[in-house]
Amino acid sequence: MFISYKNNVMKISARNQIKGTIVEVKPGVVTAKVIIDIGGGNRLSSVITMDSVEDLNLQPGDEVVAFIKSTEVMIGKE
Amino acid sequence: MFISYKNNVMKISARNQIKGTIVEVKPGVVTAKVIIDIGGGNRLSSVITMDSVEDLNLQPGDEVVAFIKSTEVMIGKE
Amino acid sequence: MFISYKNNVMKISARNQIKGTIVEVKPGVVTAKVIIDIGGGNRLSSVITMDSVEDLNLQPGDEVVAFIKSTEVMIGKE
Amino acid sequence: MFISYKNNVMKISARNQIKGTIVEVKPGVVTAKVIIDIGGGNRLSSVITMDSVEDLNLQPGDEVVAFIKSTEVMIGKE
Amino acid sequence: MFISYKNNVMKISARNQIKGTIVEVKPGVVTAKVIIDIGGGNRLSSVITMDSVEDLNLQPGDEVVAFIKSTEVMIGKE
Amino acid sequence: MFISYKNNVMKISARNQIKGTIVEVKPGVVTAKVIIDIGGGNRLSSVITMDSVEDLNLQPGDEVVAFIKSTEVMIGKE
Repeated sequence: MFISYKNNVMKISARNQIKGTIVEVKPGVVTAKVIIDIGGGNRLSSVITMDSVEDLNLQPGDEVVAFIKSTEVMIGKE
Repeated sequence: MFISYKNNVMKISARNQIKGTIVEVKPGVVTAKVIIDIGGGNRLSSVITMDSVEDLNLQPGDEVVAFIKSTEVMIGKE
Repeated sequence: MFISYKNNVMKISARNQIKGTIVEVKPGVVTAKVIIDIGGGNRLSSVITMDSVEDLNLQPGDEVVAFIKSTEVMIGKE
Repeated sequence: MFISYKNNVMKISARNQIKGTIVEVKPGVVTAKVIIDIGGGNRLSSVITMDSVEDLNLQPGDEVVAFIKSTEVMIGKE
Repeated sequence: MFISYKNNVMKISARNQIKGTIVEVKPGVVTAKVIIDIGGGNRLSSVITMDSVEDLNLQPGDEVVAFIKSTEVMIGKE
Repeated sequence: MFISYKNNVMKISARNQIKGTIVEVKPGVVTAKVIIDIGGGNRLSSVITMDSVEDLNLQPGDEVVAFIKSTEVMIGKE
């Protein structure tokens, strides 16, 4: 997946880059919760700083990309 | 999402619990990479210990659940 | 350690699964702090979402299991 | 800090985005270590997947940006 | 980098240990944001518990060390 | 819990600081697994860099302290 930075194309190492649409932004004091619909009946819950919510001007309806580092994904098996 | 522990139903706090099917297990020495197809054209890459791969006997074709804590999900917006 | 999911036994990859008893729940706006007594004079401090505190109905006195991924454990040595 | 994704400008929520130059790439089986000189006498050590090292073609001398989520930064004080 | 614990010298495994000066502490309910100037035009944003802010008595002007585990550092390349 | 850095007493923000004894060190290429007995029948599994294992000269029998940030602790409840 290609990203660009400033005027050039940038790739970022995070292996998990999932497109979705914001369905909820709940502001707190330091952090905020953002819920993203990624399709296929799945939603992602994200806790980021209020600084980021304001800097990116995140709002319901925004099309976004969720980034998750591989080392943060656990697996459960029946 | 309900999980059970021993004989009782257990819930786990990780907000992101996504069902999928393992499509690749690449063993290393200490860690392994596991790729999970979660549908909707999305795949998750996970790095876990070889101990876990062996303990859960993870193999391609296995139906699994990926667990991701909300604090590990970043957001990008155009 | 065996966990079950829905009606089947589930194992989860997080290598650290420690039983304990909740001794404090401090609610915030987006996140909450939960203190768990794990015996042997040790307590764990956890920051999770308010959503999880409410979904699991976490309260002092509850017997719980703390899950920690191996990649999140650092080591200090004199 | 502005990033662009595909053909559009993208911002990413990770609050810490630090420019630097790769001084070492040590490949493993699943993961690799990458050392980045960020100036001011500071170096960052990063462990990412071999997939990322190959996908981004990371090599000594490359100018890169290190991304670190705020929730991953601890503080020590004398 | 050497650290000492109680009366003895201690080293901690986190590979990234960066000296800086606190320029902002924003308290929340459970968590707080701390901004650290690490020189070279770089600032680090940290989200830690209010418990830690109070326990370490963190204030603007304090000289501190930021600790970041290698597995938490992602890389972007143009 | 008090730590000292160089010649001065240092406190670190990680809320979870648990004493234990190393019972196993398994080296990999980039990372290593370290198992720590923390008493009360509990063991912690840690994945850190080989650089840290060598820098701290970690070996079975070593008395160590495990550090875990609160944001990395999940909770399960039956």
